[in-house]
Amino acid sequence: MTTDSNCIFCKIVQGEIPAFKVYEDEHVLAFIDISQVTKGHTLVIPKAHHQDLFDLPEESSKHIFAVVPKIARAIKQTYQAEGLNIVNNNGELAGQTVFHYHVHLIPRYGKGDGFGAVWKDHSAEYKPEDLQQIAKEITVFMKK
Amino acid sequence: MTTDSNCIFCKIVQGEIPAFKVYEDEHVLAFIDISQVTKGHTLVIPKAHHQDLFDLPEESSKHIFAVVPKIARAIKQTYQAEGLNIVNNNGELAGQTVFHYHVHLIPRYGKGDGFGAVWKDHSAEYKPEDLQQIAKEITVFMKK
Repeated sequence: MTTDSNCIFCKIVQGEIPAFKVYEDEHVLAFIDISQVTKGHTLVIPKAHHQDLFDLPEESSKHIFAVVPKIARAIKQTYQAEGLNIVNNNGELAGQTVFHYHVHLIPRYGKGDGFGAVWKDHSAEYKPEDLQQIAKEITVFMKK
Repeated sequence: MTTDSNCIFCKIVQGEIPAFKVYEDEHVLAFIDISQVTKGHTLVIPKAHHQDLFDLPEESSKHIFAVVPKIARAIKQTYQAEGLNIVNNNGELAGQTVFHYHVHLIPRYGKGDGFGAVWKDHSAEYKPEDLQQIAKEITVFMKK
């Protein structure tokens, strides 16, 4: 298993740093985020060290997301959450602060509860043919 | 396959509404979001109708996230994105507007490019024993 001795999440996986675990199997670990954005905010990580989504093998992604719905349902039931955001930040610009791939599960209780997202709708800038062109361009790299 | 005749994403799956597709297999469809938050903003959905993550079967989650890393890499390469956010909103309060489970892939190019997140760090409100209690409470529902 790939591991990075300077990585705080690898240290949690190795048991060198304690964590409040909610789930663990051969490939995946889920634990309470010490920076609770809302109550029950949980992180799910691969045990192997992968920096971000760009670096994440398909198998690892499947292992993680096999368990995400179950954890989401457990959090919702525990605290009667009204909603839940899944967020995964890749790259410093995107808000990533620990460079070991991780998925945030953020239960939601009300506006202003701790998490919020800003979405600018740029649809007025794109004609249907522009969107078609974007799909075409991305598809080229899907085939590589 | 579960389908909802009033659901816009089911209509896309059925071919009743056109979409600019970047990937398709037996279980999963990925297409360009017509409300481009940033250039290359893509949605990944299960073909079967599931309202949200709470309603999503494990198998379906695995099918979707088997392909997410590959699409993320393709988007990054196509537009030389600096980062990428994965966002999945569950429940109206969490920002969900179409009630067919979907995952946003939002490439990032710079601050203020279209997407941003507000994270309030409430860690000062939680002692280690509070976090341990949260883990314990959620774990109860993980076992059910």
